[in-house]
Amino acid sequence: MSNPNATPPLSLAACQQCDAQDPLRGLRDAFALPAGVIYLDGNSLGALPRTTEACVADGITRQWGQSLIRAWNSEGWFALPRQLGARIAPLIGAQPTDVVVADSTSINLFKVLSAALSTMRALSPQRRTVLTETDNFPTDLYIAQSLCAQYGLSLRCVPPQELLAHLDTEVAVLMLTHVNYRTGAMHDLRALTQAAHAVGALTVWDLAHSAGAVPLALHADEADYAIGCGYKYLNGGPGAPAFVWVHPKHQALGQQPLSGWWGHAQPFAFDAQYCPAPDIGRFQCGTQSVLALQALGCGLSVFEQAQALGGMAALRAKSLALTQTFLDLMALRCPSADLQCVTPRTDTQRGSQLSFQSASVDTYALTQALIARGVIGDFRAGDSNGAPDLLRLGFAPLYIGFEDVWHAVDVLVQVLASGLWRDPVFAQRHGVT
Amino acid sequence: MSNPNATPPLSLAACQQCDAQDPLRGLRDAFALPAGVIYLDGNSLGALPRTTEACVADGITRQWGQSLIRAWNSEGWFALPRQLGARIAPLIGAQPTDVVVADSTSINLFKVLSAALSTMRALSPQRRTVLTETDNFPTDLYIAQSLCAQYGLSLRCVPPQELLAHLDTEVAVLMLTHVNYRTGAMHDLRALTQAAHAVGALTVWDLAHSAGAVPLALHADEADYAIGCGYKYLNGGPGAPAFVWVHPKHQALGQQPLSGWWGHAQPFAFDAQYCPAPDIGRFQCGTQSVLALQALGCGLSVFEQAQALGGMAALRAKSLALTQTFLDLMALRCPSADLQCVTPRTDTQRGSQLSFQSASVDTYALTQALIARGVIGDFRAGDSNGAPDLLRLGFAPLYIGFEDVWHAVDVLVQVLASGLWRDPVFAQRHGVT
Repeated sequence: MSNPNATPPLSLAACQQCDAQDPLRGLRDAFALPAGVIYLDGNSLGALPRTTEACVADGITRQWGQSLIRAWNSEGWFALPRQLGARIAPLIGAQPTDVVVADSTSINLFKVLSAALSTMRALSPQRRTVLTETDNFPTDLYIAQSLCAQYGLSLRCVPPQELLAHLDTEVAVLMLTHVNYRTGAMHDLRALTQAAHAVGALTVWDLAHSAGAVPLALHADEADYAIGCGYKYLNGGPGAPAFVWVHPKHQALGQQPLSGWWGHAQPFAFDAQYCPAPDIGRFQCGTQSVLALQALGCGLSVFEQAQALGGMAALRAKSLALTQTFLDLMALRCPSADLQCVTPRTDTQRGSQLSFQSASVDTYALTQALIARGVIGDFRAGDSNGAPDLLRLGFAPLYIGFEDVWHAVDVLVQVLASGLWRDPVFAQRHGVT
Repeated sequence: MSNPNATPPLSLAACQQCDAQDPLRGLRDAFALPAGVIYLDGNSLGALPRTTEACVADGITRQWGQSLIRAWNSEGWFALPRQLGARIAPLIGAQPTDVVVADSTSINLFKVLSAALSTMRALSPQRRTVLTETDNFPTDLYIAQSLCAQYGLSLRCVPPQELLAHLDTEVAVLMLTHVNYRTGAMHDLRALTQAAHAVGALTVWDLAHSAGAVPLALHADEADYAIGCGYKYLNGGPGAPAFVWVHPKHQALGQQPLSGWWGHAQPFAFDAQYCPAPDIGRFQCGTQSVLALQALGCGLSVFEQAQALGGMAALRAKSLALTQTFLDLMALRCPSADLQCVTPRTDTQRGSQLSFQSASVDTYALTQALIARGVIGDFRAGDSNGAPDLLRLGFAPLYIGFEDVWHAVDVLVQVLASGLWRDPVFAQRHGVT
């Protein structure tokens, strides 16, 4: 059933059959999913692995409580950022020594974009532009705005289809989120990296909606810098620490201005002068929450179980089959034009989510009505530039199955048919005006 | 017994009597301290509050596991950084709306020093110096080196006794750690702030070894910026998130370049343009670990219990009595010149730790011998500039008692008398050469 080219299952029985035949199905048992819920928001906050509570409790009570300061060495706390990085490496096509876990995605973007811009200032000071997508996640735009102001550069924001046309020798860095947080559209990382390199620019990739959802080959694709999120598809827990990947050829170059002691070549020499680690270690800054790191490790353990079952390639095939099944069931059961899928239907152009807009349905009220019936997706508001309101549904292949898809469509069809989102009492209760 | 002017207890019975009469004694029961250990390293990693495991388990299993994405609202996760900030405020003499919890001390120092330097560049661009102490904690020096390079400023590092002489109209910012991490010496925050203001400079205070250990009055003393640590005296757990305080008159000024979406005036408007929150909120950046925030809340709860018992003033009186008792017992029982206390003996000039150097004893081996006997302090190596090796002992008044002090001195006296640290087998086992 992980074959995306197979005929999609269009009945409940067929979906149940798919789950029964799914070699990845057992991984769902690694999660503590609430009863009565179909969770289609793992693209925003991943589900809880069953091992997390006991692991973190051990970190608290035995390690911290009993070993106290000694646990930094005896329990290997100091090694966690690099160890977790090495465990993320296979998910993103990286060498184990090129990834480190630390801080948040926003802060890590600041680090790698700083490194890229300072490297380019030395190499090609005439390049005055950072190129990105208009619809990039806001925090990426904000961090780029800050660094462009510092470096005296322009931030050029264009629609995705115009990126190639804007990739010229003015561009210092092409900074993109691989899978768009609103639409679920996925860039061709390899092709855009090659195009950027062809004009002499560097690439910075935000993998927030990619890592753990789609296979990546950062090293083989010769990407330059990447960052990603621990709390979405990696299931590290709310606000889990993020990660940084830097191609080894760039690690010793450029300035990472968050020069905290954990990024020092010898943190415990307590030198008065900062000397950055020669490797990925310099993308650390200060002390990290050990409890948060340990919780992220529990999320990564499930991917390690998945490795024996085909790893990211198998998860990707299942993810595509899940989203395709959702679309096919919608076409079959809900042929009205109420909802339009804005996510590309071509496999190579979408991540692991589907987003829907509507001219006739209030998608905010629709999202609330689904949640009230146990189908948890989320809503992303449009803007004054014409971006539409969206219902967003994520399909985390580690724990979502085909029967979930069938029931989600079933509830969606019922809610659409009921017209409940037009009910003023319902609307008022959910703040819809 | 919390009266620092009382005659110090010089016998085990007298120390036990002090504990029996100590109104703060019950707070010790709020911590899960390991049996057979006297923990004098709370200045490095605070002890475990008894409530932490259950609180974090609830955050994991019920909140994250059951409510999933909905918990951001239903469990108040979004409010935690400001809520925890408001709870730290009474410990540091701040208004509740002027503190926020986020990120690490190193990153928060980068934020506030950036804000201070950009403010001064606008006000007094001719000022070209950041003044600090040679023996400041390395990460503070590293962050200052990075920002001085960016701003084209000089970082002037001087011994503490020369700070006033170097405070001239060249100085843009006076950046100091309030209590020195090595020696435990405490600056006069109010006097130095006034002296800095008298020459037109701003102040940035690192409270890593102060918050929760000594009373602070940031607002009344008219300090400008401060940051502090969650995992030392605040007992928030290993790598707990740190905090930022900014005087309200500065909050809307200056650039904080870590312009992540949590610092936006309206994070959920998803505006394309960064617009910083008008208040302390702009010193946030990205999503924080909820588990780490909740664990910090458990540490703060113990201070809230202490509030009814006199709060920081009572804790400070006890802390001074503990360190004074340690020094008096050492003078009585160990009159040899083996160990010299480098921490100032004047109450107003020391924090809540004592540090010892020695010309005759290998303080690294001594520290290891103490730890092997259950008295946990730590060792800080000297440097080639003449800073001595130090044995460092912290006295967290929430959970350390007078009997602990008596036993710690007793073990120290025994170890010194045994000459064990000169034993080559012991030394080899602990890597001493």
